[in-house]
Amino acid sequence: MHRNLLHTTHTLIPFSTQKSEKEILIMASLKVPQSAPSPAEDAEQLHKAFGGWGTNEHLIISILAHRNASQRKLIRQVYAETYGEDLLKTLDKELSSDFERTVLLWTLEPSERDAYLANEATKKFTSSNWALVEIACTRSSHELFAIRQVYHSQYKKSLEEDVAYHTSGDFRKLLVPLVSSIRYEGPEVNTMLAKSEAKILHDKISEKVYSDEEVIRIITTRSKAQLVATLNHYNDHFGNAINKDLKADPKDDFLKLLRATTKCLTRPEKYFEKLLRQSIRKLGTDERALIRVITTRAEFDMERIKEEYQRRNTVPLDRAIAGDTTGDYEKMLLALIGHGNA
Amino acid sequence: MHRNLLHTTHTLIPFSTQKSEKEILIMASLKVPQSAPSPAEDAEQLHKAFGGWGTNEHLIISILAHRNASQRKLIRQVYAETYGEDLLKTLDKELSSDFERTVLLWTLEPSERDAYLANEATKKFTSSNWALVEIACTRSSHELFAIRQVYHSQYKKSLEEDVAYHTSGDFRKLLVPLVSSIRYEGPEVNTMLAKSEAKILHDKISEKVYSDEEVIRIITTRSKAQLVATLNHYNDHFGNAINKDLKADPKDDFLKLLRATTKCLTRPEKYFEKLLRQSIRKLGTDERALIRVITTRAEFDMERIKEEYQRRNTVPLDRAIAGDTTGDYEKMLLALIGHGNA
Repeated sequence: MHRNLLHTTHTLIPFSTQKSEKEILIMASLKVPQSAPSPAEDAEQLHKAFGGWGTNEHLIISILAHRNASQRKLIRQVYAETYGEDLLKTLDKELSSDFERTVLLWTLEPSERDAYLANEATKKFTSSNWALVEIACTRSSHELFAIRQVYHSQYKKSLEEDVAYHTSGDFRKLLVPLVSSIRYEGPEVNTMLAKSEAKILHDKISEKVYSDEEVIRIITTRSKAQLVATLNHYNDHFGNAINKDLKADPKDDFLKLLRATTKCLTRPEKYFEKLLRQSIRKLGTDERALIRVITTRAEFDMERIKEEYQRRNTVPLDRAIAGDTTGDYEKMLLALIGHGNA
Repeated sequence: MHRNLLHTTHTLIPFSTQKSEKEILIMASLKVPQSAPSPAEDAEQLHKAFGGWGTNEHLIISILAHRNASQRKLIRQVYAETYGEDLLKTLDKELSSDFERTVLLWTLEPSERDAYLANEATKKFTSSNWALVEIACTRSSHELFAIRQVYHSQYKKSLEEDVAYHTSGDFRKLLVPLVSSIRYEGPEVNTMLAKSEAKILHDKISEKVYSDEEVIRIITTRSKAQLVATLNHYNDHFGNAINKDLKADPKDDFLKLLRATTKCLTRPEKYFEKLLRQSIRKLGTDERALIRVITTRAEFDMERIKEEYQRRNTVPLDRAIAGDTTGDYEKMLLALIGHGNA
C-alpha cells in the first residue's frame, strides 16, 4: 500500500502562479516608479486630489495607474486609517462613468476584482458571461482559490453555487466544472492520453454532441500542458484545429463558449487580443470588455497582448484606444497599458 | 454598479474551519499530554523503538497516538534531519498489516492523509468510494483546499481530474461537483429558497429521476446551513425525511451514494457511527473503514461519534473495538479514541 505514502517528504509548495514573478514583470504593461512614494504620501496626495473645487483626475491617474497590487492595497489601508473612509467609496463619489469603473476595478486587488467581475457575470449571464471563462481559464490555481475566498466573504455564497443557480442546460454543464476546477499546473504530459482524448474529442465533435460529458470532462479537468498536447494531436491527426471544427454552426452560442474556453486555456493572449479588437471595433465600443481586459491584464501579460494586437491589426493598441476613447478615461487606459512615465 | 464593490473593506478572513478550535478540542478523542516532550526527544525515543532486537510497538503507540498534527509534523521533520530518513519510511519497514496502516495514516498530516485516501478511492471506485464522499462533505473549505494542493504535488494531477476520469454516468455526475465544490460556510439561510428547493428535490425524487441536474446542483453547491433548512422543510412539508424517500430501491448503489452524501453533509456523526457499526459487525471486520474513521476523526469529532455509537449500540465503541481487534492494532485504535493516559 505504501509506495505513494512514502513520497510525502516533499516540501509542500503552495500552488504556483503559472508564470514566474520575473516573467510577469516582463509581460506586465504596468509601469511602477523605481522608488515610489510611501503609501502615506500617496494617500495624502489622493486626499488632496479630492479636495478643493473639483477633483484632480490627473493626479489620481498619476498615482493609482502606476502602483502595483500590493502598493495599492497599502494605500487603501493607510487611506482608511488616516481619513476614516474607504478610498473606493471616495473614488465612487468623486468619479463617474467609464473612468470611474476603470479606476475602481483597477484599485481593487486582483482577487477582489475577479470575484466582483465573476459575480456580475453570474447575474448578467448572456452579455458578460465571458468573464467567467476568462477567470476560470487564465488565472493561476493560487489566484483561483483567493477569488473563491473573497467570493465567500463578499457574497455569502460560493461562486460555483451562483453559477449553477443562474445557468442551465449545456451552459451549466460546462461552466460549473469550469469555475470549480483547480487544474494541476505542472508541465507533465501523457502522450498516450493526449492521443486517446484527442480521438474522443474528434469523435464527439463529428457526431455534433458538443456537450457530451467526455468533452466537458477533458476540457474542464485536464492540465493546460496536457490539453495543449491533446489539441496539437487533434490538429495534426485530424487535419483541423479544434476551434475550426467547433465552428460548424457559427451562430451557436454554446459553440462560441467552447471556442472561447479552448482559446483561453491554450492561447490566452490571442483570446484577449480578439476581445480587444471586437470591443474597439464595435460602434460605440464595448467599454465593459475593454475595461475588463485592461484592468485584469495590465499587471500580468498585457505586453504579450499588445504584441498580438499590433501583429493582427497593424496599428498598435494604444493608437486604437486613443482613437476610440476620450478624456480621463482614455488617459487612464493608456497609462495602464504602459504610456507615460511612472 | 458599485454597491457591492463598496463592501470590500472587510478584512479577508481565510476560510474558517467549521468548528472553532475550542470546539474541536472538546470533540476530539485524541489525548495529548499537557507538557509533551520536545520533538527531538520524541524522535530520539522513536529511533530507539526501532533499534535493538525487535520493534518496541508499545513505545511507538505511547508517543505517536498522543501527539497532535502539528506535533507529529515536527517530529517527522526532526527525525528526518537527525537520522536522515523519513519516519514514515522507517515505520513502513518496521511495522506490518493493519497496525502499520493505522500508524502510517495517523502519522500523516490531515491534508496528506485525505489526499492519500482520496487518491486510493479514485482507483478502487466501488469498495472505498465513500472516502471521497466523506472528505468532500465533512472537511472544512480550508482543509479541502489544502487537500487539493497536496494532491497536485503528490500525484501530479488534480483530484477532480482523477475522479472524473475514473467514474462515469450518474456517479460521475454527483462525485465530480462534490469533490470540486468549496461550499460557503456561513450560517445564513434563505427560507424561500429552502422551500422552493425542497419542492424541486421532492418532485424529482417522486419522478425517480434521482440524478437530475437540479438535484445534483442543490446537493453539491448549497451551504450546509442552507441544506439543513431545505431538508428540514422537505421533512416537515412532504412527510418523510429525504433519506427515507431515497430508499425506494434499497439495492440501488446510486441511491446509497446519495443517502451517504446527505447524511455526511447534515449529520456527519451519524454517518460515521453507522460506518463504524457496519465495519465492526461484518464477519472479519472491515478494517479499512474502521481505520479510516478513527484516524481521520480522532483529532476532530470522535467524541461526538462515540456518543452516537453508544446511544445506538448500547455498548461503548471501545468495548466493540476491543472485542473485534487484537494486539498492537487494538492498542493503537483504543489510544486514538481516548484510552489510556497521554
